[in-house]
Amino acid sequence: MPRVFKSVDISKEEKEIRKDYFDRHTPWVICEDTAKRGEKFKVKVKLGRDYVHPADPDHYIDYIQLWNRETLLADLRITPMVLGNNSGQVEVDFYIVPQNSMNLSAMALCTKHGLWQSDSKEVLIRD
Amino acid sequence: MPRVFKSVDISKEEKEIRKDYFDRHTPWVICEDTAKRGEKFKVKVKLGRDYVHPADPDHYIDYIQLWNRETLLADLRITPMVLGNNSGQVEVDFYIVPQNSMNLSAMALCTKHGLWQSDSKEVLIRD
Amino acid sequence: MPRVFKSVDISKEEKEIRKDYFDRHTPWVICEDTAKRGEKFKVKVKLGRDYVHPADPDHYIDYIQLWNRETLLADLRITPMVLGNNSGQVEVDFYIVPQNSMNLSAMALCTKHGLWQSDSKEVLIRD
Amino acid sequence: MPRVFKSVDISKEEKEIRKDYFDRHTPWVICEDTAKRGEKFKVKVKLGRDYVHPADPDHYIDYIQLWNRETLLADLRITPMVLGNNSGQVEVDFYIVPQNSMNLSAMALCTKHGLWQSDSKEVLIRD
Repeated sequence: MPRVFKSVDISKEEKEIRKDYFDRHTPWVICEDTAKRGEKFKVKVKLGRDYVHPADPDHYIDYIQLWNRETLLADLRITPMVLGNNSGQVEVDFYIVPQNSMNLSAMALCTKHGLWQSDSKEVLIRD
Repeated sequence: MPRVFKSVDISKEEKEIRKDYFDRHTPWVICEDTAKRGEKFKVKVKLGRDYVHPADPDHYIDYIQLWNRETLLADLRITPMVLGNNSGQVEVDFYIVPQNSMNLSAMALCTKHGLWQSDSKEVLIRD
Repeated sequence: MPRVFKSVDISKEEKEIRKDYFDRHTPWVICEDTAKRGEKFKVKVKLGRDYVHPADPDHYIDYIQLWNRETLLADLRITPMVLGNNSGQVEVDFYIVPQNSMNLSAMALCTKHGLWQSDSKEVLIRD
Repeated sequence: MPRVFKSVDISKEEKEIRKDYFDRHTPWVICEDTAKRGEKFKVKVKLGRDYVHPADPDHYIDYIQLWNRETLLADLRITPMVLGNNSGQVEVDFYIVPQNSMNLSAMALCTKHGLWQSDSKEVLIRD
């Protein structure tokens, strides 16, 4: 049964003690707070703010998913040992054309440490 | 934030009341209880025992995943409106070559109702 | 530019000389010659008849796709070093619910030797 | 048997006559001509320069792949009717950490018109 590790479920204390472990596994969604309806909107998903994830044959980031609430928007499979995986710091920019306000989140799968979920990011729509 | 609906979390009562809803969304893992080490072992994953899931342009089963504990074994993307999706009863047989005992589970993504997780299935290894 | 290696393009002579190389890379589609319209129909895709493909960290089968003419039916991503990949002999059974006659083929991606295409398999529909 | 439509195989005349058809199906790889060894390098893949692809339930862009010669770097599955698919102009930025010179190309799958391959893009490495 794959567990889902969520940033919100981890205590501040625990985050401090195992800072590097949490940091390099947790994806984050980076974008503006508001988007213009029907226009391309850039959403960056990145792994690790200060620490880099290993990229070993049996320990790497396998995929990154972008979700809007319960809806999967995009699913990126990364071939191990190449691409941003080289550095362990996976990064990708998606371009959305939103029609309504969104609650975005990202999921990352580490082949050794399971599924990790980002904080959610509210995006309001303006006309 | 994608939620994960798990068969174990749903009360018996609720399962009875909304029997068709739970049945057609929940994947199940079907295989023998023991496997011979290093030999091909068939694992069937199926959606719905008694009820069929819809297959509409905006409501279909998007993917089926097979997991061994925290490890993703296989990820099957299904093009909507074709394949087993026609009938809403997705079915696939994977062939594993296990080295150790396994705790298998499956995940299914419905484009309207989120992620669904099967009961887990223990498989013991024999030599 | 990924090339696509097709069984039909390779001369009989060359196939004989490098028999193991071609055999272990070429997927094959195994199913009945006719299917009943609207009923579940099993399609097996297998890699290698007589030889097994390696399963090394930098050399493995990454995905298997099932196509009906120009239409992708299903796309199976396999986590390296696990599943049928252990033995190098990937195998999967898809279940299709066909409405019309089909011309099936499979594609396999080897991380070292590119894309490989099976012979095509005609399936006629009966009522 | 999925055919692969390549920009280089299509005559200049044909491209002129069916300009919109070719334009909206052909992905293009956009990046600098040189990259610094071991540093993150941005590679944009975009569909359509002047024309937008439809985004209908049975006619949409299903996936975008980024290749370095015979090696798949990344495989992006896009849920139909959402994301950049809304506008038909799929766009994504990958971040590579190259160690050697590359020959990049992209593939796009249209659910109605098959596989389309971009022109290839040489990237030289500098220290």
